[in-house]
Amino acid sequence: MKIRPVLYLISYALVFIALAMCTGALWAVYFHEDLIPFVYAIVITLLTGLFGIVVLREEHLDQQIGAREGYGIASLGWSVITLFSALPLVFSGFFTPTDAFFEIMSGYTTTGASILTDIESLPKGILFWRSLTHWFGGMGIVVLMVAVLPNLAVGGLQMLKGEVPGPSVDKLGPRIRRTAQWLWVVYLAISLLEVAMLLLGGMSLFDACTHTFGTMATGGFSTKNASVGYFNSAYIDGVIIFFMFVAGVNFTLHYQLIFGKRFNYFKSSEFVFYCAVILISWIALTWDIFMAGLYTRIVDAVRFAGFQTVAIVTTTGFCTADTNTWPTFSKIMLTILMFFGGCAGSTGGGIKHIRIVILIKTAYRELFRAVHPRVVRTVRVGKQVIDETMVSSIVGFFVIYVAVFVLGAAVIGMFGFDFVTSVEAVAATLNNIGPGFGLVGATGNYSAFPDAAKWILCFLMLAGRLEIYSVLLLLVPAFWKR
Amino acid sequence: MKIRPVLYLISYALVFIALAMCTGALWAVYFHEDLIPFVYAIVITLLTGLFGIVVLREEHLDQQIGAREGYGIASLGWSVITLFSALPLVFSGFFTPTDAFFEIMSGYTTTGASILTDIESLPKGILFWRSLTHWFGGMGIVVLMVAVLPNLAVGGLQMLKGEVPGPSVDKLGPRIRRTAQWLWVVYLAISLLEVAMLLLGGMSLFDACTHTFGTMATGGFSTKNASVGYFNSAYIDGVIIFFMFVAGVNFTLHYQLIFGKRFNYFKSSEFVFYCAVILISWIALTWDIFMAGLYTRIVDAVRFAGFQTVAIVTTTGFCTADTNTWPTFSKIMLTILMFFGGCAGSTGGGIKHIRIVILIKTAYRELFRAVHPRVVRTVRVGKQVIDETMVSSIVGFFVIYVAVFVLGAAVIGMFGFDFVTSVEAVAATLNNIGPGFGLVGATGNYSAFPDAAKWILCFLMLAGRLEIYSVLLLLVPAFWKR
Repeated sequence: MKIRPVLYLISYALVFIALAMCTGALWAVYFHEDLIPFVYAIVITLLTGLFGIVVLREEHLDQQIGAREGYGIASLGWSVITLFSALPLVFSGFFTPTDAFFEIMSGYTTTGASILTDIESLPKGILFWRSLTHWFGGMGIVVLMVAVLPNLAVGGLQMLKGEVPGPSVDKLGPRIRRTAQWLWVVYLAISLLEVAMLLLGGMSLFDACTHTFGTMATGGFSTKNASVGYFNSAYIDGVIIFFMFVAGVNFTLHYQLIFGKRFNYFKSSEFVFYCAVILISWIALTWDIFMAGLYTRIVDAVRFAGFQTVAIVTTTGFCTADTNTWPTFSKIMLTILMFFGGCAGSTGGGIKHIRIVILIKTAYRELFRAVHPRVVRTVRVGKQVIDETMVSSIVGFFVIYVAVFVLGAAVIGMFGFDFVTSVEAVAATLNNIGPGFGLVGATGNYSAFPDAAKWILCFLMLAGRLEIYSVLLLLVPAFWKR
Repeated sequence: MKIRPVLYLISYALVFIALAMCTGALWAVYFHEDLIPFVYAIVITLLTGLFGIVVLREEHLDQQIGAREGYGIASLGWSVITLFSALPLVFSGFFTPTDAFFEIMSGYTTTGASILTDIESLPKGILFWRSLTHWFGGMGIVVLMVAVLPNLAVGGLQMLKGEVPGPSVDKLGPRIRRTAQWLWVVYLAISLLEVAMLLLGGMSLFDACTHTFGTMATGGFSTKNASVGYFNSAYIDGVIIFFMFVAGVNFTLHYQLIFGKRFNYFKSSEFVFYCAVILISWIALTWDIFMAGLYTRIVDAVRFAGFQTVAIVTTTGFCTADTNTWPTFSKIMLTILMFFGGCAGSTGGGIKHIRIVILIKTAYRELFRAVHPRVVRTVRVGKQVIDETMVSSIVGFFVIYVAVFVLGAAVIGMFGFDFVTSVEAVAATLNNIGPGFGLVGATGNYSAFPDAAKWILCFLMLAGRLEIYSVLLLLVPAFWKR
């Protein structure tokens, strides 16, 4: 990996981040809060970024960026950006450096896991900035850079591969900058729509913005201790369910609807599978919590089961109910759904539905082969034949994902928490959900974990958001060879 | 699938099972116990078997058995044999039909999960028969039939594919009957050695035999409520650790040592990996339980951690300590190890070490490919290049295995037990371990599960023992077409 162009591009990102912090500062001004944390953070980040741009200036940048540099920008870039973005939190005095890094990593990776025990006691400016990291992390900082910076073509594609979720980046087409631009435009447009609808439901502009960031990024940070449950409104629940669902869909489909007036959703096998998973889980969970007597009216069971199903499948992690009190079947179902994640090209985390579809088809093919060992059979999704290289790459991804999960659980198990808390903390961070069960349940948080555990969970959040490769590649010798 | 030759071969197995029951009857005579349960069961089983042989007689049996019939004999055969083998337990009056089926399925599949709350109150004849099912299930009833019945060559190979664990049956060579014979001879010889060594440790012949069955089959049924912990002897712990370890190794290696005088163990990459897994886990668990202050002397921590590590890695499931009281790291480690299973061609359950090795190598290859997309790279184990068909078959197996595990956990979660109990019950039965954590821990049992749950767990035990394909294939339409 060539480190110089990587650092050069990260410097650009820092300048951008410094400008973005100003929005948090504006809210601090509006609410008459202390501006100093933001001023310090903005100055430090801006100067570092400008220094890097001047010192590391490169000719022929685009040609310098190969596959390895793409992954490097993702993994290194996200870490450095998180470090600087955590500065306002540290300077605010409400966070230790580790806690601030954890909180912002949880923000950018759209996890939504928090160490805060009393969210509402924090300055509004800090809360806004914390939620804004969700929004940038959702569609992706690298995607934004490719959209904004000129002269990134081949290199831009490599950069996207390191960050965009799902196995289908290559299909985005040759005009990579355009692609990145419209991805952001669609994202912005849908976000504005959600803000408007939440305002209609009686939310303040501040709450509407922060909860939109949490929804559209499938993040899950709320500005309320009781999460979305605070508003206790069927309308708001409904709006957020709808936009979580939208955020979990491949944004290419939204683009085709908005700019091409083509309703292609049901032509996508992944979308159909995604709907089926949500619908079946919704029904199963409604049945389970209603039978357990948690709700006396079936309509309430439908509402709360639906919210939690969509919140988990899309990896958002908002809560309107304390799922720790739900029956075991619901808990296990929700834990399984954590791994499904959104669709490829959405803002969701997890394994992604298209991979699950291909894994199921691959597994079925092996059963078929056991009966007919000599018949050659391809894996198809809809009418499309999946290339064997793609199949083996997805299968390799799955094995690595499971390995990272179980090893993560074993390591977190060393910190003395109970079995469920240890396993769920790893599942909830690796899949970018946020809350799980046990101590990290809907009413809990991550404050009880010692610093060492928090750093490991940060690693898992980043590994989950960047789909592991970008992060694990740093461990492969071939990655570092020139 | 042709049903007639399948049923014909199952009839043969029933005759054999009826004869095997006589050994249980002999112990009943020796201990002056009620003989009636055995007499009834033997007569019914024998007559059914003889009737089937006479009615279903087939010419050219060998040519009738293809891949599908092989899987059918395994899945149908094991179910029917379990049904008849459960008769003595039902007639004894100590078991309901469901409990008897569960107990014997747990026996044949070498799981060792029991519904008994007070093992020591049962007649010795019944306990002997219960343990003997372990021993037959360990090396395999189909293997035994291939060894005993003449005229099975090509068909015999197909039959073995349905039963012998691991992905390497094809390599057993063309003289399939010979292979099956020496597998059983080696198995018998090592078992006799263990009986002798346990007798030296002061066990009665009855206990030595039953615990040898539990060890060599990697089963786990004991005749004592406190399992092997009852004997509280470092010598007996040591002997059983050694033979569990031996039973988890590919029996081809034992054969080469005993009959070929070739010590090929360390030429097998799987064996080396198996040793490394055990050694590393042993050290980690010793450290964990010693640091937690469970044992004051390090030598005790070494002994109990070692016993539990080997008992779980080999999928035996004997206990000398209550692992429910162990720290979370140990619990998670042991749960992960449950899935590793023994080596291919051993009597252990689980995924098998060779598959884990190939999965790790396949995953690493994908990381390598991410950096060098155009380089073709094969998966190698030792010096051997693994065929891509084999790689994809192993990967398909892994996906199916994980799917069966998580779906099983969700279904068992419906019965109202806590999260850990539900997940562990499925892990412990699917991997043919026996005890897990929670209610099904070292001091617990499966008596609390309702009948419906027991039947599902029976299915999981069988699916685990026959490595899923034989059982799941019944659901593939192509399997039933002629």
